[in-house]
Amino acid sequence: MNEIAAPGLFDRALRRITTVWRDMAAGVSRDEDESIEAQMQACLTSRGGEVSARNRAAKLAQTYLLLDEAERGHFLRTLASFDSDPTEVATAYAALQSANDQAERAQAQMNLRHALEPPRMQLLTQFTTIPDGMKFLVDLRAFLLEHMPGNPPLAALERDLRTLLANWFDVGFLELQRIDWTSPAALLEKLVGYEAVHEIRGWRDLKNRLDSDRRCYAFFHPRMPSEPLIFVEVALVQGLSGSVQQLLDQKAPVLDAAAADTAIFYSISNCQRGLAGISFGNFLIKRVVNVLSAEFRNLRTFATLSPIPGFRRWLDRELANPDANLLTEEENTALRGLVETDSGAASLTTILTRRGWLRDQAAGRVLEPILSRLCARYLVSESRNKRAADSVAHFHLSNGARIERLNPKADISDKGLKESAGLMVNYLYDPARIEQYHEEYAGEGRRNASPAVRRLAKG
Amino acid sequence: MNEIAAPGLFDRALRRITTVWRDMAAGVSRDEDESIEAQMQACLTSRGGEVSARNRAAKLAQTYLLLDEAERGHFLRTLASFDSDPTEVATAYAALQSANDQAERAQAQMNLRHALEPPRMQLLTQFTTIPDGMKFLVDLRAFLLEHMPGNPPLAALERDLRTLLANWFDVGFLELQRIDWTSPAALLEKLVGYEAVHEIRGWRDLKNRLDSDRRCYAFFHPRMPSEPLIFVEVALVQGLSGSVQQLLDQKAPVLDAAAADTAIFYSISNCQRGLAGISFGNFLIKRVVNVLSAEFRNLRTFATLSPIPGFRRWLDRELANPDANLLTEEENTALRGLVETDSGAASLTTILTRRGWLRDQAAGRVLEPILSRLCARYLVSESRNKRAADSVAHFHLSNGARIERLNPKADISDKGLKESAGLMVNYLYDPARIEQYHEEYAGEGRRNASPAVRRLAKG
Amino acid sequence: MNEIAAPGLFDRALRRITTVWRDMAAGVSRDEDESIEAQMQACLTSRGGEVSARNRAAKLAQTYLLLDEAERGHFLRTLASFDSDPTEVATAYAALQSANDQAERAQAQMNLRHALEPPRMQLLTQFTTIPDGMKFLVDLRAFLLEHMPGNPPLAALERDLRTLLANWFDVGFLELQRIDWTSPAALLEKLVGYEAVHEIRGWRDLKNRLDSDRRCYAFFHPRMPSEPLIFVEVALVQGLSGSVQQLLDQKAPVLDAAAADTAIFYSISNCQRGLAGISFGNFLIKRVVNVLSAEFRNLRTFATLSPIPGFRRWLDRELANPDANLLTEEENTALRGLVETDSGAASLTTILTRRGWLRDQAAGRVLEPILSRLCARYLVSESRNKRAADSVAHFHLSNGARIERLNPKADISDKGLKESAGLMVNYLYDPARIEQYHEEYAGEGRRNASPAVRRLAKG
Amino acid sequence: MNEIAAPGLFDRALRRITTVWRDMAAGVSRDEDESIEAQMQACLTSRGGEVSARNRAAKLAQTYLLLDEAERGHFLRTLASFDSDPTEVATAYAALQSANDQAERAQAQMNLRHALEPPRMQLLTQFTTIPDGMKFLVDLRAFLLEHMPGNPPLAALERDLRTLLANWFDVGFLELQRIDWTSPAALLEKLVGYEAVHEIRGWRDLKNRLDSDRRCYAFFHPRMPSEPLIFVEVALVQGLSGSVQQLLDQKAPVLDAAAADTAIFYSISNCQRGLAGISFGNFLIKRVVNVLSAEFRNLRTFATLSPIPGFRRWLDRELANPDANLLTEEENTALRGLVETDSGAASLTTILTRRGWLRDQAAGRVLEPILSRLCARYLVSESRNKRAADSVAHFHLSNGARIERLNPKADISDKGLKESAGLMVNYLYDPARIEQYHEEYAGEGRRNASPAVRRLAKG
Repeated sequence: MNEIAAPGLFDRALRRITTVWRDMAAGVSRDEDESIEAQMQACLTSRGGEVSARNRAAKLAQTYLLLDEAERGHFLRTLASFDSDPTEVATAYAALQSANDQAERAQAQMNLRHALEPPRMQLLTQFTTIPDGMKFLVDLRAFLLEHMPGNPPLAALERDLRTLLANWFDVGFLELQRIDWTSPAALLEKLVGYEAVHEIRGWRDLKNRLDSDRRCYAFFHPRMPSEPLIFVEVALVQGLSGSVQQLLDQKAPVLDAAAADTAIFYSISNCQRGLAGISFGNFLIKRVVNVLSAEFRNLRTFATLSPIPGFRRWLDRELANPDANLLTEEENTALRGLVETDSGAASLTTILTRRGWLRDQAAGRVLEPILSRLCARYLVSESRNKRAADSVAHFHLSNGARIERLNPKADISDKGLKESAGLMVNYLYDPARIEQYHEEYAGEGRRNASPAVRRLAKG
Repeated sequence: MNEIAAPGLFDRALRRITTVWRDMAAGVSRDEDESIEAQMQACLTSRGGEVSARNRAAKLAQTYLLLDEAERGHFLRTLASFDSDPTEVATAYAALQSANDQAERAQAQMNLRHALEPPRMQLLTQFTTIPDGMKFLVDLRAFLLEHMPGNPPLAALERDLRTLLANWFDVGFLELQRIDWTSPAALLEKLVGYEAVHEIRGWRDLKNRLDSDRRCYAFFHPRMPSEPLIFVEVALVQGLSGSVQQLLDQKAPVLDAAAADTAIFYSISNCQRGLAGISFGNFLIKRVVNVLSAEFRNLRTFATLSPIPGFRRWLDRELANPDANLLTEEENTALRGLVETDSGAASLTTILTRRGWLRDQAAGRVLEPILSRLCARYLVSESRNKRAADSVAHFHLSNGARIERLNPKADISDKGLKESAGLMVNYLYDPARIEQYHEEYAGEGRRNASPAVRRLAKG
Repeated sequence: MNEIAAPGLFDRALRRITTVWRDMAAGVSRDEDESIEAQMQACLTSRGGEVSARNRAAKLAQTYLLLDEAERGHFLRTLASFDSDPTEVATAYAALQSANDQAERAQAQMNLRHALEPPRMQLLTQFTTIPDGMKFLVDLRAFLLEHMPGNPPLAALERDLRTLLANWFDVGFLELQRIDWTSPAALLEKLVGYEAVHEIRGWRDLKNRLDSDRRCYAFFHPRMPSEPLIFVEVALVQGLSGSVQQLLDQKAPVLDAAAADTAIFYSISNCQRGLAGISFGNFLIKRVVNVLSAEFRNLRTFATLSPIPGFRRWLDRELANPDANLLTEEENTALRGLVETDSGAASLTTILTRRGWLRDQAAGRVLEPILSRLCARYLVSESRNKRAADSVAHFHLSNGARIERLNPKADISDKGLKESAGLMVNYLYDPARIEQYHEEYAGEGRRNASPAVRRLAKG
Repeated sequence: MNEIAAPGLFDRALRRITTVWRDMAAGVSRDEDESIEAQMQACLTSRGGEVSARNRAAKLAQTYLLLDEAERGHFLRTLASFDSDPTEVATAYAALQSANDQAERAQAQMNLRHALEPPRMQLLTQFTTIPDGMKFLVDLRAFLLEHMPGNPPLAALERDLRTLLANWFDVGFLELQRIDWTSPAALLEKLVGYEAVHEIRGWRDLKNRLDSDRRCYAFFHPRMPSEPLIFVEVALVQGLSGSVQQLLDQKAPVLDAAAADTAIFYSISNCQRGLAGISFGNFLIKRVVNVLSAEFRNLRTFATLSPIPGFRRWLDRELANPDANLLTEEENTALRGLVETDSGAASLTTILTRRGWLRDQAAGRVLEPILSRLCARYLVSESRNKRAADSVAHFHLSNGARIERLNPKADISDKGLKESAGLMVNYLYDPARIEQYHEEYAGEGRRNASPAVRRLAKG
């Protein structure tokens, strides 16, 4: 992204909190010299009443925003120190052990849960009252995720915050909204910043992605109304798309959306680092499938055009491994016919470091079937931690999609070549099979794929 | 309330869930014969994926709504049976005991918390995804509160639900909205049904309460947009109000709100039985004080005109107690001058059972000072469980208000006479003192009152 | 209407204008002693600039609202006196006569039009700038319509105002809105006041008319957003409705709207007396037919259930006319069998003055065929000024509807009995025939009717 | 404007009309072979009823949009041929002449007006019913304005259309809206296209103009909700601004708007060519002054920073005129000291053709006072058609502003140098003087100016 400055989220939050603090301040007695710890303590004991405690929490948030990075670390470690009391936990556990009946047991269990809940969680909850408080907490977690490695108290605080956020950002509270060219410019500007798959190169590119044969949907939280959480970009087309450059071509003619038979999900981006690990993508895709089905009666196929971010990394490693025997005799011969080296593997490695082969038809004829075969094998057979080795493949297979089609030269951007030798893959979402495919993958680890891909992988 | 039928909330929810279920059903394999327990199990194991699990939960909710009361009891006991596993809890506690460092301890603590969280809470959370899901859960808790006495599993389920709702209905997520005569009729109809202090006797009465010298504010939750959670009715007047019948008089002239110096909060009603014990009233009053201050520059005084629901009950008990010595010699004489009985206490008891004394000026001259004195004493000195004996007094004192003025003949409705012999009280909210008063009451139990009330109570 | 007070429109307008005037007043030099005529003159010459002229016009409007009826008459006669200048008209006409070519002629024609446009129209236009200015003008015309008989200047002013309003309220500027139970109470209250066909007897009746098997639509003008111009009430039913009391029965079960095959337009009311003669009803019905067709696929029939306001007046006159020979021999006999008088006509006259026959089955058997026959004749054959004698019949026939079915005992309210002996009629709107039927009625005066009605009329 | 394509307004209108036509078409009998003239005739006679006539008009509009330029000319000449009937006009005039009393005269006058109203105006009005109908008519007038020179029928049609549009776009119907960075991107894109004073060079420039120390307001018509009619850009600053490049500098710090004492109106652009001659600018400025005054209590000064589009044209002409004696002896000498030519006038002419003098401090010291003096004289004294020779000066003087300050090097863009040698002028809007200044300029032609400008002009 070149043209548009990243929105100064913290600064804006700061300004609004400053304003709101002015409003809240009337009637709150303050002691400017109070230490941060004492201020936190005052929030937790609800000194001056619950309303005052909330106002104190707002002041704390304001203080935090004015701190530099080191001071923020101190602030958060202080916050983390408000942990649960081991003695209380032990007492509560003992009570649970000695409970005499179901009712006593239930009560003791609840008491133990309360004893285990660190007081800092109460303070984190109090921050929700301030305007932009939810964004404040999401950004707080982003900060913690960045700074917690090697810092157990921060890690514990991060986990508490994650528990709270997972609760508040349950998909039941999210709103699906369509984004188009009549959406607020401030929101569209954020899309540009958040797009993580295929960079948006300016407003013209963005407008093209919001044209009448395109759709864009995002999840929003009611307490963060101007912040998308995740968004998906969809193209309404005829047949499966096999090239993202074609999809993004600003000069391509606009199709009549009503005539489209296929919806291609070509980009899904998470927007909030602070919500890492709290997943919405699965719900987003299926909600959008429902919305599109209702609007366009002619749609028959729902599929992605997805990157294969791990393919080249895997391929390069295998090609460098003399024992891998990745290539057949014929492939070896053909590749050495293109570049004379010690082995077909070495030839392939050499060729892939250069862009030139893309325009060389003879090279293409040799490479495309080899790359397709290897990529099919990578997607269908390679594993890491008992999952599909490729992270995007794992995401879609978990959601109940199947591997439908491999597309050579589908993303010929530098990034596409570097990550996946230009290949992209269509994952197919067949509403009638989603449950079964999910179960098979989640249970036995079975990866569903079209016969063509299956054949390729075996070939 | 006579004219307006209670809104059929369950029925409406049912209809909408039925519709949504039709939409969600595509792609979900169903087995109509599956037992409720098996269905719940399927939700919890996320069989078919998380999206399918949510759809199953929606189906469960639909099933529940079609059950009769006995069947609902069975349904909920089944749900309650998805409790945490004592073995897992014990294992997790042991791990916590043997944790070697802060990091291990933090992780073990988190694990123990998870082990203690009953699976039924996950299922309750899944219900949020359905439309009106939040209202569904609130009404579920209302049902549990009614049916749990003597039923420990239901009580445990209720407590879990309360934990979840307290989290979701944190005041940070609520929206303050003004309600007036341009609000949707469907919403106004609900106000009529929910008003708990001074019955709204029809649309004319309601319109009068929403006139230009009145204000009404309510908290709403973003996921229950057409359901008020709590609302307050305010009159903009000159000086403290001493009669609710005057405030509600439809023929009284409309004042120029801009000239008002006093805002009287004359009715606060909680709307959702299912949110019992999750308190918003404190925040509501203070938010409304801020909003009114900003709109009306001439407002100087913020006070309530409140019922004293426990006064007569206490008074009657004391009057019946021969050792109480509630009345002075003079009072005894004067009262027996009105009705000849064995004692002044008996006379007073007799008089208060009849409406007649309200119109009898001589009786009024005798009764008003006596009732005021006794009521002041009741509010200032009588306790129950270390709190003010009167529940409304406890609420406002906790919020940092002070007892400002007693008003005889302030509520001469049957209910007012029966509960408090017609007396009402003004609690004063002085923004500069709220914190201090709250602290004094919460800490030492000190009840602040105006000098006049203090004198009365002592007299 | 009994429960709900008529909204004080003028008062509200006055209050808002007062406010706005305070805002506009800064920078406008005023001379309180200026006569109304001088103030009008200042508006018309745009003294101090066009913005100042508008502010002066606002002040004039404010002045007007504070006047009593007699003073308003004076105000309006003064306004009416700003007429076009005969000399200018004569000069412009002479120029038109001597125009040499098309261009000169076109210009001269335009000049003559300008010369003919009375300056008072400019001032009326200036009133649009004030808030509620459009409502001000509509109410001004209502006042003129009431007071102009015998007052030529006021009549001329009224015609000018009508020209302007017809222009501004062209159907192209109107917005169709659905009204339901979530509409603002303030708007619903107005419906109650404006309903002209079947009185709304309170909020319960109103809510029943807005239930899920009912629809209500109104036209609004963007500059009078809280004022309906005309509204129609529709019932979604199975088959043609034959009784308005059944339609309005609050205890009748609510039907599943999706299953309805017929939409019955049972009430159309104009709301603004000041827009008399500017017709929207035709457009409203057809827009609503389109909206309903799109929403409910099962709807096949669109028809009214309409009053016949002129039937009894005509019938009584004919019955009193000894030469009319309205009744057949058999009818005469049968009627005299019910009440013995000089003639069947006299018997019928007598019977119709009493409600009793409604419950007398024998009487019903005699009367219903006679009344139906006579009413069919009245609707199909009776004329006044070359139109259908009945005003409602004329409205629907002009719109291209046909007379479909007569319904005895369809409106047994006092009004229904008095106006039409309890009969109502269904006019059928068949989208495929509307144009043809309209042409036939507008051209040859041909009234289309179903074969059954035609037979009745002849019988 | 380079980055953003002009919105295809006609195309969009066409698409929507096509859609709506499909909706309207049901029930309208069509004869594809009907000539345009016959179709127009059918609209005017309301064949098939008024609703059908409107549908026919929609079809005509659709036809028009599909025509090429020559065919549109034919279409419009056909439309123009529906003129008023001279015989009817003559008859109506004769009736007016022979009217016997006020009532007859008023009626006859009205009749004459009707006779003079060409039937084509009725058809133009019918076009309002179609979606985007208002934009259709505005664009129709834009087309007529371009093609009418030398074509009297089109000119007459244009004048009728102007009459209608002036009526519908009366300022009383317009809505003032603030535009900021949260406005729809589609609207902001239009601003870029419509900005007529200082080109918007992309989204970054646009965002900078909508920052927190800037304001942008536009008038909208309720029937053209996504089309601004006119907009003004305002900078909130300290003291009068003297350089538009500074105002538009994207790197300049953002000021605290609340601290600003001056609002600078630095750009006003009309958006719709089809509304030429229907003026809103005057109202817009004064409405915005009111809005800003209410929001920012510290604002004391409202002024423009305006171009002087006619200065160089006048100056060059005068410099070329040997009899003009524009320069003093000292000025002549000083100028010839910079560039040696025959005369100071020739030197000045030479210098102004080059950009170089802007960076040459010595040249600046000579030129600035000379240019300021001459420009002051141009603004204060030069006339054309009895108005200020400069069109922008005439606009602001008519509105009641005064000439406050001249700013050299205030617009050093190529356009600024070419039009006004880089000078710009502040017009001051003093709410207390606007009326008086307007009257003096409108009446005696007196141009108000600050003492400094007045002195310059005389010097």
